[in-house]
Amino acid sequence: MPKVVDPAERRRELAEAVWRVIRRDGLEHASVRNVAREAGLSMGSLRHYFESQGELLAFALRMVIERIERRIAALEPQPDPRRRAELVLAELLPMDAERQAENEVWLAFTARAQVDPALRPLRDQGHDVLRAGCRRIVHDLAGDVPEAEIEVQADRLHALLDGLAVHAAVRPDLNTPERMAAVIARHLDDL
Amino acid sequence: MPKVVDPAERRRELAEAVWRVIRRDGLEHASVRNVAREAGLSMGSLRHYFESQGELLAFALRMVIERIERRIAALEPQPDPRRRAELVLAELLPMDAERQAENEVWLAFTARAQVDPALRPLRDQGHDVLRAGCRRIVHDLAGDVPEAEIEVQADRLHALLDGLAVHAAVRPDLNTPERMAAVIARHLDDL
Repeated sequence: MPKVVDPAERRRELAEAVWRVIRRDGLEHASVRNVAREAGLSMGSLRHYFESQGELLAFALRMVIERIERRIAALEPQPDPRRRAELVLAELLPMDAERQAENEVWLAFTARAQVDPALRPLRDQGHDVLRAGCRRIVHDLAGDVPEAEIEVQADRLHALLDGLAVHAAVRPDLNTPERMAAVIARHLDDL
Repeated sequence: MPKVVDPAERRRELAEAVWRVIRRDGLEHASVRNVAREAGLSMGSLRHYFESQGELLAFALRMVIERIERRIAALEPQPDPRRRAELVLAELLPMDAERQAENEVWLAFTARAQVDPALRPLRDQGHDVLRAGCRRIVHDLAGDVPEAEIEVQADRLHALLDGLAVHAAVRPDLNTPERMAAVIARHLDDL
């Protein structure tokens, strides 16, 4: 009897195969052929789920956004906005192996979208979702301050987060979870 | 009579041809062949200056670092450390077309070095030089504070800078020089 495969589960496995190829060989090598080989499937089987490399990449990138959103939605309610900010920001930063993988995939997409316009809408969506999340955190923490100040502080927190994420990918030996947490704590002190 | 070509000038032109290929097509397309075509030279002429793609890429990346260092060295002396910090940070951020080009080349190298170990020493050198510059700025501004506080603030300024640079590459319409300057000014206020 053939094994029954849950299509959602299979698509998740395929996206993870895309992630592995991107992290090991680079995004331009994440072709339908290479991903099928990585996942141990025939090209025909893979095409049952994804018709093109574009679809495969888009799914793998959406999975980064969805995982982060799911983790944030699953956080326990927090009456203290400072504590909530710390927990949300920790979900956005590469604090463990799973989030390191997401972060490296995101960095590869960010750079690749500069020369591949088809990737830009999803990359920009990720950018805007993160900016909106930063604005909400600043708004909740800053209290009654002028609108312009909230926007500057949202830009600042957003840039800080993405800079920490890039540094954690580039120099994981120096930019450890402990150092990221210390920087975030210091930043929230000033808000 | 054949035109006399200054070799330093020719190498600079070639590095700029590398930059154009990287920004238009992506770093993996910056082969000796494509760069020779971009520069209007034969492969043989180009090989007179650079023997391999690796040498060509390394030179193009070193030119980013050297240009930034030269501009900072050329700044007028500033008795006020806050004013000096603003001027140095402005040289590091993509505030005009020249610095936007440097920034996009840097982003492409940053991502590519994740999967191409040959590029890592130079990328890490750029990372460390920028970190040291941030530490100096924090040290000059912060006065008599504990060593650990200087390190956290140096990590923070470094991450902020690289985050702003990534955002300027990704969304230049939103992340304008004016907004970067406002974020930097607000950050220096807190130091």
